[in-house]
Amino acid sequence: MNGADLLCETLLANDIDVCFANPGTSEMHFVAALDRQPRMRCVLGLFEGVVTGAADGYARMADKPAATLLHLGPGFANGIANLHNARRAATPIVNVVGDHATFHLPYDAPLTSDIESLARPVSHWIGRADLADNVGQRTEEAISAATRSPGQIATLILHADAAWSPTTVKTVGRAPRQVLRQPDMGRIDRAAKALRSGRRTTIIATGPALREEPLKRLDRIANTAGARLMAQQANGRIRRGSGLPVVDRVPYGVDQALEAFAETEQVILIGAKAPVGFFGYPGKPSSMLPEACEVMDLLADGEDMVAAIEALAEAVGVRPDLAARLAERRSPAMPSGRLTADAIAAVLAHHMPAEAIVCDESVSSGFGSFLMTSGAEPHDFLQLTGGAFGLGLPMSTGASVACPDRKVIGLQADGSGMYTVQALWTQAREKLDIVTVIFANRRYQILRKELENVGAGAPGENARRMLDLDNPDLDWVQIAAGMGVEAARTDTVEGFADLLASACARKGPFLIEAVI
Amino acid sequence: MNGADLLCETLLANDIDVCFANPGTSEMHFVAALDRQPRMRCVLGLFEGVVTGAADGYARMADKPAATLLHLGPGFANGIANLHNARRAATPIVNVVGDHATFHLPYDAPLTSDIESLARPVSHWIGRADLADNVGQRTEEAISAATRSPGQIATLILHADAAWSPTTVKTVGRAPRQVLRQPDMGRIDRAAKALRSGRRTTIIATGPALREEPLKRLDRIANTAGARLMAQQANGRIRRGSGLPVVDRVPYGVDQALEAFAETEQVILIGAKAPVGFFGYPGKPSSMLPEACEVMDLLADGEDMVAAIEALAEAVGVRPDLAARLAERRSPAMPSGRLTADAIAAVLAHHMPAEAIVCDESVSSGFGSFLMTSGAEPHDFLQLTGGAFGLGLPMSTGASVACPDRKVIGLQADGSGMYTVQALWTQAREKLDIVTVIFANRRYQILRKELENVGAGAPGENARRMLDLDNPDLDWVQIAAGMGVEAARTDTVEGFADLLASACARKGPFLIEAVI
Repeated sequence: MNGADLLCETLLANDIDVCFANPGTSEMHFVAALDRQPRMRCVLGLFEGVVTGAADGYARMADKPAATLLHLGPGFANGIANLHNARRAATPIVNVVGDHATFHLPYDAPLTSDIESLARPVSHWIGRADLADNVGQRTEEAISAATRSPGQIATLILHADAAWSPTTVKTVGRAPRQVLRQPDMGRIDRAAKALRSGRRTTIIATGPALREEPLKRLDRIANTAGARLMAQQANGRIRRGSGLPVVDRVPYGVDQALEAFAETEQVILIGAKAPVGFFGYPGKPSSMLPEACEVMDLLADGEDMVAAIEALAEAVGVRPDLAARLAERRSPAMPSGRLTADAIAAVLAHHMPAEAIVCDESVSSGFGSFLMTSGAEPHDFLQLTGGAFGLGLPMSTGASVACPDRKVIGLQADGSGMYTVQALWTQAREKLDIVTVIFANRRYQILRKELENVGAGAPGENARRMLDLDNPDLDWVQIAAGMGVEAARTDTVEGFADLLASACARKGPFLIEAVI
Repeated sequence: MNGADLLCETLLANDIDVCFANPGTSEMHFVAALDRQPRMRCVLGLFEGVVTGAADGYARMADKPAATLLHLGPGFANGIANLHNARRAATPIVNVVGDHATFHLPYDAPLTSDIESLARPVSHWIGRADLADNVGQRTEEAISAATRSPGQIATLILHADAAWSPTTVKTVGRAPRQVLRQPDMGRIDRAAKALRSGRRTTIIATGPALREEPLKRLDRIANTAGARLMAQQANGRIRRGSGLPVVDRVPYGVDQALEAFAETEQVILIGAKAPVGFFGYPGKPSSMLPEACEVMDLLADGEDMVAAIEALAEAVGVRPDLAARLAERRSPAMPSGRLTADAIAAVLAHHMPAEAIVCDESVSSGFGSFLMTSGAEPHDFLQLTGGAFGLGLPMSTGASVACPDRKVIGLQADGSGMYTVQALWTQAREKLDIVTVIFANRRYQILRKELENVGAGAPGENARRMLDLDNPDLDWVQIAAGMGVEAARTDTVEGFADLLASACARKGPFLIEAVI
């Protein structure tokens, strides 16, 4: 057994059995180790942003980390944007980043770079394995770090000689897992008191609170107390659809968010952050809450969120017979004719199969999709959490690897879709059951709106050249076909409904270029 | 005038008039400023790796920096791999990275990240403009840093409120430029003495030394002294072809490099680094030079390389009538039948038009292209300098923006081409005169060889899944067409020769999928 084998066995012993990978020469001994161990499922991404985004989507659905395999600093760098998103989603990921042999590092060979400096902004834990004998220990530390609540990014730098050298370590260790603390009753009582106070209160939740049972409990708590329940603006995963609570999100737009909280006197945060603007604007506040609004956290780091919600329900005296405000199965009226973003949402609400996993990076085109699908079949809804474009297609890919029996529906803006378009090939290679809907408005529409807000007037030549995706138009049908994914284009509601229905009825990847 | 206008005007006043861009909301006031200033040519990339790689290719050919416009930490991160390559090529680049308004930064909005930590590994200079009134000064500092010899990466972080606030600055400044020092005659004399010593000597050069006149001078120096002249393993730009010196590069392979230097007693470095292995291997040395080999630098940082070469020529008494060893126009014998990597090289040597710019990221498939084109029409040859895949297509794009009247030929491996495939769209949008040759071997061939070297035997399921690009095959003709670039596929020498000849005879982007 060499260091690379020890790494592979330690991952497997800790139930990490999927590795999203884009290896290079310095990782070749780890590739050889993976090759000796067929229990590890290796999924190739043709670009590292695909690798890290897929690891994010996978862990959101599998509730356990995947490993990634990345090639030195530059390979890691290509994966940073989606690690940024994963960090904001509190997704557990174990990155394995190859580095030169320890003896080779001082020679500053072409690929040498400062991996720690690159990793720090997106990693909760960084470690180096520089000897075969410490690979196992470091891997356990990485796994312990990644699985810390609510979910962390651990980056393990593996020197090539630590990988290829034989190890004297004979046993493969189990990484210690964090034990969540019971909720602090002082915080629970304070929140319960606030809910009974009669002041206008909003509960903002994210993370495990948005899974089915805690979410239903929270809905009853809010209902009992006359409070409002919201999800964070962006969330790793929300359970929703018919038979589940209808939960709004904090609005994206600053004006809408300010309006939403104008009357709010108290906010109870459950794993969530107090709402702030996505960007700062001249003359507008950064916090979306009124100055006098009181903010309290229901739990501290390391406390058990589900237990805290249970305790809160008890403290506010949720009556078990209280009717929850659950969505009924309903679909918005079906429009017809020319396709629009909202028409896509309406068609989705009709045709989405039960237990679909919706991966949303539809950006400005998708604001309606969330609203209109609240009464669709029960589903999980996964969002772009860090604002870094290029998560959508990889996230769909990883979610489908985690849940091969569920239909994944990717809602994908065209502009952001191009960032990591290589994910389509992995979807084809792995025969994943994913329908991708490209909202093809052929521009960075969200930036067009922001330019308007700047007061720059009608965009001129340079602005149009930077914000429009036309001249030439992207042909998503050919791009997808070139990577092995069957695809079709439509610009009518009827055409879209037909394509979506047939794509949902079959298995395997399919892409719909929805021209809006 | 606001801070954004001041930035734009300062760039223009310092002859930086091309901006490769992928902006976001925080850069919207800079976009508006660019929109008010049509002298700035804005070139959109649909992914930031395209933006930075294009800036690299542009500056290598324009001999002046381009600006890039990138969106906060995650947008910058997407550009890091090609900035790594640019740093290794000593290419001057001025990155403008938007950041939140200063007052918004403490709120840790979703896109907030540690830009400095991300920028440090690839930037020689990092600065923040946090007030409209210091934008001009910071921009000048960035330009001064970028243009320092031999070429540097400067990263200017522009807060949104510094961009949108009015400035009291009325004049736009010229950035002080570094004045190169005259060569140190002590170093020149030492090198001249070494060349006269009769010991086996290799001159290894890169940077400005590989332009036409200094290169011819170096060739005569080597010829006079009976020394060997080589270029670094990877170089930003080499002038070559008929009528120019035939210059080998330091071999990529460790065994080949060790053999090449086995008898070498002295090495004179001209801007180059002493040769080291691209990677470290078990039981193999990191330095490619024999232990007893003496290494000397012809010049120190900040000294004038061209003047140093002149001084060396004088010191070794180069006779003006000495025949230089210049390549004659010749083409290797034309093969026929099934297409191979070497057959592609032979066809290139026949059909490359004079003054072509060859952008090479053909990786293992292209080892023959360099050798066989030494007697082709005169051309510039641009290489992957930092080993980070994904430079080729963007570099072609930027080189063509810099030199619209020259044919750019991209030699592109299929695996590395997928990293930044979005560059094809920019080639179509800008109607750039680029022929891209995809070496479609449908695998990471270089890694296949490395796996063999590891002694892992025949690859099994997991290794094949990580190293082969098949199942499905990539269809480059459809991928290119999907982004607006006309394309064709061939797997015969005759077919390739026909396609290349016709692509060279017309203007505009064209892609040849050369199945080998």
